[in-house]
Amino acid sequence: MLETISEHGCYGGVQGFYRHASGSIGLPMRFSVYQPPQAKNGPVPVLFYLAGLTCNEETFMIKAGAQRFAAEHGVMLVAPDTSPRDTGIAGEADSWDFGTAAGFYLDATQEPWSKFFKMETYIVQELRELVLQNFPARKDSIGIFGHSMGGHGALTLALRHPGVYKSVSAFAPIAAPTQCPWGHKAFSNYLGKDEAKWQRHDASVLMRSKFTAPYPAGILIDQGLADKFLEQQLLPQEFEAACAAVGQPLSLRRHEGYDHGYYFISSFIQDHMKFHSDGLK
Amino acid sequence: MLETISEHGCYGGVQGFYRHASGSIGLPMRFSVYQPPQAKNGPVPVLFYLAGLTCNEETFMIKAGAQRFAAEHGVMLVAPDTSPRDTGIAGEADSWDFGTAAGFYLDATQEPWSKFFKMETYIVQELRELVLQNFPARKDSIGIFGHSMGGHGALTLALRHPGVYKSVSAFAPIAAPTQCPWGHKAFSNYLGKDEAKWQRHDASVLMRSKFTAPYPAGILIDQGLADKFLEQQLLPQEFEAACAAVGQPLSLRRHEGYDHGYYFISSFIQDHMKFHSDGLK
Repeated sequence: MLETISEHGCYGGVQGFYRHASGSIGLPMRFSVYQPPQAKNGPVPVLFYLAGLTCNEETFMIKAGAQRFAAEHGVMLVAPDTSPRDTGIAGEADSWDFGTAAGFYLDATQEPWSKFFKMETYIVQELRELVLQNFPARKDSIGIFGHSMGGHGALTLALRHPGVYKSVSAFAPIAAPTQCPWGHKAFSNYLGKDEAKWQRHDASVLMRSKFTAPYPAGILIDQGLADKFLEQQLLPQEFEAACAAVGQPLSLRRHEGYDHGYYFISSFIQDHMKFHSDGLK
Repeated sequence: MLETISEHGCYGGVQGFYRHASGSIGLPMRFSVYQPPQAKNGPVPVLFYLAGLTCNEETFMIKAGAQRFAAEHGVMLVAPDTSPRDTGIAGEADSWDFGTAAGFYLDATQEPWSKFFKMETYIVQELRELVLQNFPARKDSIGIFGHSMGGHGALTLALRHPGVYKSVSAFAPIAAPTQCPWGHKAFSNYLGKDEAKWQRHDASVLMRSKFTAPYPAGILIDQGLADKFLEQQLLPQEFEAACAAVGQPLSLRRHEGYDHGYYFISSFIQDHMKFHSDGLK
């Protein structure tokens, strides 16, 4: 059921890469898990990381340097791939911001994508259950974070599935996808022309729909000010305003001189790991 | 003279990638530099990292997580590419362990490689001077380390050029290349059939040739015991015996469960950065 691609010693724990036949996707899917040394002694909190456009299940584990702090805090890390692959859909890999490696963490409703692109169900249900069954992870202590498209994914899945995730944070998330070109392209193709349906996958709209703060302990977002996607695609001020409107505590930190890449993420990963460790205790 | 490919904010400093026309190689060469935040206030110690087979100037900066500790200690990091590229030599990229990305940090004497493969002169002279001229690096405070082929490079260059490097360490170095298949293949093609000439590029032989310990403050080597290259290719026990023979202090740490990759390196990079920071003060 679960095929081990490779496992590597890492900070006293195990960095692993795995493949399985996904029922919700209908194709093989890959994901990675970092088990901290504490997992040898029993179940530990688990933190899902959703990566951005063009990335895969390896990107975060290779580039972010998170394992050091996962080992320090005793938190398991799980990183799925960013979309189904090799679906056979014509043109699936023609765009870097749509289709392959651009699943946007939602369940597509429009042909031809709807047959395979069920990333929301995959992440929230199937992969979560698979991890809980196969690794020493605590089912009552699950957090989620991500970067860019994966920041959108983390925020929207955390807001759409109350009670599943105890903590949520993001790096440079696509914070208002109904208002940006990446979101328009993805939503119109995956969800169709009815923009009302797009709103259910927009973190800022979702937050505004809440009556009380869904994460009273706060949400952490880091954003680089040298990020070339900031003004056109990311729009963190929309999410900031939505949080203010519903009284959701938000730490939105804007950093001069940092761009959209993993050198930015690795510079602040320590704070996110501490944030989730505190939230998952 | 120095072309900036890209620069990125990273731990309060700058991660940069550069290209220049190399006089010693006769072709354009790429390298990377991490400038810690302390470099804004004046020259800092500089630590060269030599990567292994198949790697390039990006590998270490992406995968090792060293910048966090470079920023902590105020040490600049420099990583060159692992060979000349696009030389036009027939078959240059046919092997993963010879030719392109496998320069072995020596000056080739045999045709056709000798025209371009001058990695020793490039690293020890040209790139060092280029860095000292273009970045706030202290010329009296230079260290060197590396991984696998780059561990061989670090040890041999440190032993062949007394006074240039104040500190030296390695991860899973090719410690006795005259006795292993990788070394035989590289040395016979780059240096010719006279094995006496190979010995000048074998860290264990070089160490045995010393009358007194060349690095009295010690040398640090980490080696994973799950490394599939350990017994055939790396032979750290040869270097260990050579150090013992000349009274060279060596900390050779053998780690159960760690393999040859960057998850191993990142697990112990903190110790190497501390080791060099202490040695370069």
